[in-house]
Amino acid sequence: MNGLTRVEIARITDKVLDHAQRYFRSEGFLEIKPVMLACITDPLDGDPGSAVLKTGTIEYGGQNLSLMQSMILHKQKLIAEGFEKIFIMSPNIRLEQPHREKTGRHAFEFMQVDFEIAHGKKEDVFRIVEGFMVSLSEEFQSLKERGKIEMPFERHLVKDLEAEYGPDWETIMSRKSRHPFWALGLEREFYDDEKNNYDLILPEGYGEVLSGGQRIHETEAVLERMKSHGILEKNMEYVEFARQGIVPSAGGGIGVDRLVRYIAEAEHVGDVQLFPRIPGRPVTF
Amino acid sequence: MNGLTRVEIARITDKVLDHAQRYFRSEGFLEIKPVMLACITDPLDGDPGSAVLKTGTIEYGGQNLSLMQSMILHKQKLIAEGFEKIFIMSPNIRLEQPHREKTGRHAFEFMQVDFEIAHGKKEDVFRIVEGFMVSLSEEFQSLKERGKIEMPFERHLVKDLEAEYGPDWETIMSRKSRHPFWALGLEREFYDDEKNNYDLILPEGYGEVLSGGQRIHETEAVLERMKSHGILEKNMEYVEFARQGIVPSAGGGIGVDRLVRYIAEAEHVGDVQLFPRIPGRPVTF
Repeated sequence: MNGLTRVEIARITDKVLDHAQRYFRSEGFLEIKPVMLACITDPLDGDPGSAVLKTGTIEYGGQNLSLMQSMILHKQKLIAEGFEKIFIMSPNIRLEQPHREKTGRHAFEFMQVDFEIAHGKKEDVFRIVEGFMVSLSEEFQSLKERGKIEMPFERHLVKDLEAEYGPDWETIMSRKSRHPFWALGLEREFYDDEKNNYDLILPEGYGEVLSGGQRIHETEAVLERMKSHGILEKNMEYVEFARQGIVPSAGGGIGVDRLVRYIAEAEHVGDVQLFPRIPGRPVTF
Repeated sequence: MNGLTRVEIARITDKVLDHAQRYFRSEGFLEIKPVMLACITDPLDGDPGSAVLKTGTIEYGGQNLSLMQSMILHKQKLIAEGFEKIFIMSPNIRLEQPHREKTGRHAFEFMQVDFEIAHGKKEDVFRIVEGFMVSLSEEFQSLKERGKIEMPFERHLVKDLEAEYGPDWETIMSRKSRHPFWALGLEREFYDDEKNNYDLILPEGYGEVLSGGQRIHETEAVLERMKSHGILEKNMEYVEFARQGIVPSAGGGIGVDRLVRYIAEAEHVGDVQLFPRIPGRPVTF
């Protein structure tokens, strides 16, 4: 915890939330209210970084409703309707396997600043996110002292990192780095363009803080990937949406809890949650 | 819908969220991240206005976790730890009975600006909330045109309103009124002081937009009420908390969706949710 009290941790969190809300608005984004229950949610298929045991579901009004794993599908629906730039302070539930407790950065409930840009390209996302990180670093003494961050951030192809460091490239590179950097071209969920997706990795061993991508907008291509991932039948509402026409977009989600952990230099993400929600640990309140 | 497009509805929502975040910060409140899953949540006992079918629960890690109905218990826990003024942009899930569709103001998923003031009294809450409503009314042309709101708001005892208008006092008084007013002394959940609680009622028939109260802080009194409401055994984490000592506080929750409905002059709260979550209506995305 680096000696910080819970009120001090909350002050950092408040400042991150405030900064995110102001920054995205100043860039012309509309804040959308989060959705928590839906008939479909991000299946987190195809992402080797996912270790979700199951999707949380409840029965209500004769329907099975899923707890939101990420709002990507809902963001795409709004973009297709004519929304241009949107962000959501989005609580997500991912019921991860208990061994994820050991990573120090997995919580089964967390918040993302989830954003999407209609007709956006990865370069638009890089500019927005880098601007956010640079302005954030100017807000916090603890970040200022750890070295000035400058745009543009370094970019690395994951296939190069894997060739050099093996499958544990993220941990190794994160520990070696003194600045956040982009990792490009990851294995991904059905909706992400495999050649134009990205993770933002924090330095000093804090690891991934953002995942995103340019989204696939060709209906046939996306249905083909859903079929090959074996998730087509379970997501018919998305299939129907895709058949009506997907509007190209790019976006990502910035993990608030992970950012706060990084700023606070905390051992574990559970140390910066006032009510920790960590896989493998009981909930006490 | 009063002819507004979905993007226009979203712009109103964004402005309400922005205004709430700025206003509560300017009054010295810290923004706390919402909690969605917990071992205990507001049981909504004793409130005759509640018509919840069941609490949404999931099993994870050998525990039954409840979907958040309101963060009152978690707010009280933070206040007891030394937090002074807090607010949460809090998504709540209340699995209401399907007949609630007809009220026009019930959604089974909605957002509250949920706030709490350590050692606060109802007068502190009135000042904060009235200031919020007045400044909000200056932000929106549609509110300006419907008449200037001035502090202090009218206050009525519920027992007087019931004597005059019968059990349907809220609907009748809301339709008659041209300004928001306070209704005082309602039948309430176990944690609220029966003599010092309040609802804020919107005019023009839009009905209740805030519920709150001074909280009971005497351990024996609160345990007695839990016992008489038959909810003691199911909330042992709260019992344990109460035994360690409750710090007096007052607060409330402002319904964002209901505020947006009022500003937009929409028929139904479902008309101002981009992804409507209305009891008795199927979820389509």
